[in-house]
Amino acid sequence: MNQKIVFYHAPNSRSGGAFALLEELSADYELRLINLKAGESRRPEYRSINPMGKVPAIQHGDVLITEQPAVFMYLADLYAEAGLAPAVDDPLRGPYLRWLVFYGSCFEPALVDRSLQRDPAPPSTSPYGTWDDVLGALQLQLTKGPYMLGERFTAVDVLWGGALHWATLFKLVPETPQIRAYVDRVITRPAMQRVAAMDTEFLAQQAA
Amino acid sequence: MNQKIVFYHAPNSRSGGAFALLEELSADYELRLINLKAGESRRPEYRSINPMGKVPAIQHGDVLITEQPAVFMYLADLYAEAGLAPAVDDPLRGPYLRWLVFYGSCFEPALVDRSLQRDPAPPSTSPYGTWDDVLGALQLQLTKGPYMLGERFTAVDVLWGGALHWATLFKLVPETPQIRAYVDRVITRPAMQRVAAMDTEFLAQQAA
Repeated sequence: MNQKIVFYHAPNSRSGGAFALLEELSADYELRLINLKAGESRRPEYRSINPMGKVPAIQHGDVLITEQPAVFMYLADLYAEAGLAPAVDDPLRGPYLRWLVFYGSCFEPALVDRSLQRDPAPPSTSPYGTWDDVLGALQLQLTKGPYMLGERFTAVDVLWGGALHWATLFKLVPETPQIRAYVDRVITRPAMQRVAAMDTEFLAQQAA
Repeated sequence: MNQKIVFYHAPNSRSGGAFALLEELSADYELRLINLKAGESRRPEYRSINPMGKVPAIQHGDVLITEQPAVFMYLADLYAEAGLAPAVDDPLRGPYLRWLVFYGSCFEPALVDRSLQRDPAPPSTSPYGTWDDVLGALQLQLTKGPYMLGERFTAVDVLWGGALHWATLFKLVPETPQIRAYVDRVITRPAMQRVAAMDTEFLAQQAA
């Protein structure tokens, strides 16, 4: 499939991760901006693209891909030459998949409960155990540094660097020296800086 | 990596999906049973393997892979000859990733809130929108049938067939004719039947 990627993005939202990844990959894509404040993500026009009414979403040819970890896996494999996805026969492939999925299956649900000051579900039901389980597993993984999977910078870091940046700003995750250093390592990258600058501009346009 | 897969499994738990997949793939694996009722998943011995204290988890050589969708992606690509994972350049690859991730990022969090009779988080926070968003997106996808991605049976069906079987039994998901037919199509497969029979036996052993 040589068609261009169409990327649905809302500035300063969860789709910032996918935006940064597209820039890190030097991907050929067409940006379509969604105005969350104006409710565009939940209108029928957008629902006909992504029935969940969420960003990020990408279209590639006839195909729709949603869910941040899935978008990451798809794009990083599509642009394999950028080297952000360990190959299927690389020993890092398993941890790579694990930490991309962990973001959506454990970290986000835990963060939601924490931000609402709700208890997690009982142990037999909770998909993430407890908040301490999630933070502990994450901190243990970060000791492998400088990046999540060790020496190699991958798409996992594009996702987690941005997510931890946001989560520490909102005081949902403690800004330990380890986490601060990791976030800085990622967000100072040129692609991340470009995306932050573009998002600031897009937000101003949408507010105008 | 030619080492055998070591699979940590608790009978009648979330890891049943990975168990079924290993059988569908005719994988060469070593089963290690965890007794959830006896609290084995949360003991230090198991925490030293998976710090989250959850199943499924697999070890392959020195590598740990956790989180059901990640375990599925890893195994189905490792045993590519079984044909349960569309290849990276197949147009089904995107939907394949999307629906595996959707299970952990949207369906499980929605199911947890529903089983606890909790409201979802506000729209700007909820990772899955509303319960109706999740069920609607799922039902729309099932119209592509007979399988989740259309004509082709994939690892997505091993995950979703089992999950919907369980969720309809517990009356968390409505047993519509569409869902019932889909579940039946999957759970009547020989590998699924083998796994169900083995789990019954393992449970009896653990209770003894």
